[in-house]
Amino acid sequence: MSAKKVEVCFTPALLPLYNIANATVVIIDIFRATSSICYGLHNGAQAIIPVATVEECLAYQTHNYLLAAERDGQVVDGFDFGNSPFSYTREKIESKTIVLTTTNGTHALNKCKSEAQQIIIGSFFNLDAVCNYLISQGENVLLLCAGWKDKFNLEDTLFAGAVVEQLKKSDYLSDDAGTASQDLYDLAKADLYAYTSKTSHSERLKKLGIEEDIKFCLQLNITTAIPVLNGEKLECLVW
Amino acid sequence: MSAKKVEVCFTPALLPLYNIANATVVIIDIFRATSSICYGLHNGAQAIIPVATVEECLAYQTHNYLLAAERDGQVVDGFDFGNSPFSYTREKIESKTIVLTTTNGTHALNKCKSEAQQIIIGSFFNLDAVCNYLISQGENVLLLCAGWKDKFNLEDTLFAGAVVEQLKKSDYLSDDAGTASQDLYDLAKADLYAYTSKTSHSERLKKLGIEEDIKFCLQLNITTAIPVLNGEKLECLVW
Repeated sequence: MSAKKVEVCFTPALLPLYNIANATVVIIDIFRATSSICYGLHNGAQAIIPVATVEECLAYQTHNYLLAAERDGQVVDGFDFGNSPFSYTREKIESKTIVLTTTNGTHALNKCKSEAQQIIIGSFFNLDAVCNYLISQGENVLLLCAGWKDKFNLEDTLFAGAVVEQLKKSDYLSDDAGTASQDLYDLAKADLYAYTSKTSHSERLKKLGIEEDIKFCLQLNITTAIPVLNGEKLECLVW
Repeated sequence: MSAKKVEVCFTPALLPLYNIANATVVIIDIFRATSSICYGLHNGAQAIIPVATVEECLAYQTHNYLLAAERDGQVVDGFDFGNSPFSYTREKIESKTIVLTTTNGTHALNKCKSEAQQIIIGSFFNLDAVCNYLISQGENVLLLCAGWKDKFNLEDTLFAGAVVEQLKKSDYLSDDAGTASQDLYDLAKADLYAYTSKTSHSERLKKLGIEEDIKFCLQLNITTAIPVLNGEKLECLVW
């Protein structure tokens, strides 16, 4: 059996360079979409429907869903909430279906959903669960960082590095982007919060007064829930 | 006066995301195009004409130029040479004009030449000279890594990090890609050769039997020559 690959795609703009037909794609948007999705399913949400645009999100208005829309770090006017994990607590979302659109995370997901063999959602919240699942499946892996408006960002890269670190121990081979991500995670892991305080996105969130979200999203392994795309819906993976 | 920016674009595929009309762009293709260009002008080449395709290169055949073409790490059949720095020694190229096409480096250059305010060529060979020049000019800077077929690579990123390190000391602000590059360079700089031995491109060159090129291209500050694009030609910058 040939060694499996773990590659890191730093932004959705580079996705066309990768062959994902035979890969499991892990979508990563640490601040904050994929963290909130993991937290929501952990807290009993029935499903989360990711959509690309605010208009698509609004189209679900009549279906008794919770509507969540974020653009440029803020809740879009008229929506129940955006992508702060504090909106995805059990009392707010248990047994509900949420329709979600965000600046980067759902954009990344929508760019690969027609081609990928399987799509799952990663965040520091479910790091070990994601790694264990990937290793158990033994498929090639693409770690797709949502970035910021198609540019590279550090926090998504750090999470990618954390996954690469674990997969390499199970004999996965990485590309240069994986090696760089792993080395950056190794630098940062002793104090992720201190390290990410120098990221551009962290600055952006601080200006918006949502610094607590950053700290919250950097917690490791608070859940074993793995959101998986099933048709149009993200649901909790059962395996 | 507002602080100047130094941004890092990890691959030519991401170039459309950056505004380069008011920036000096530094093209980086460490293994080996931009190293060889710097070495060639250092060794007295009159000019180097970068072209995108092998066909364009061939069109210069009647002009008494040296023709250099590389694809996938190897000299293209029928050409004087490719992009090994050992082909750009004084006895081979002094006072000559070279027409050059390579897999990544000239591709990167051609993607930005119609828009950039100024284009210069960077490599470890002229690291300090490039940094001193950029700081003296005080313009915004985009460090454009040629990558490998539009994917991220480590060695170009390390050089970008070396430039970011110096520019930040002169109060330039960097983006996340700049911060990541600087941190990776900081990890690698004590022994660049050991660090780059884990890159994919290094593996590729070793397979081609041109490992000596790698060691050679990692020498720091052997020249103060800065190639600058002047019309269609790269010439030695005089400032």
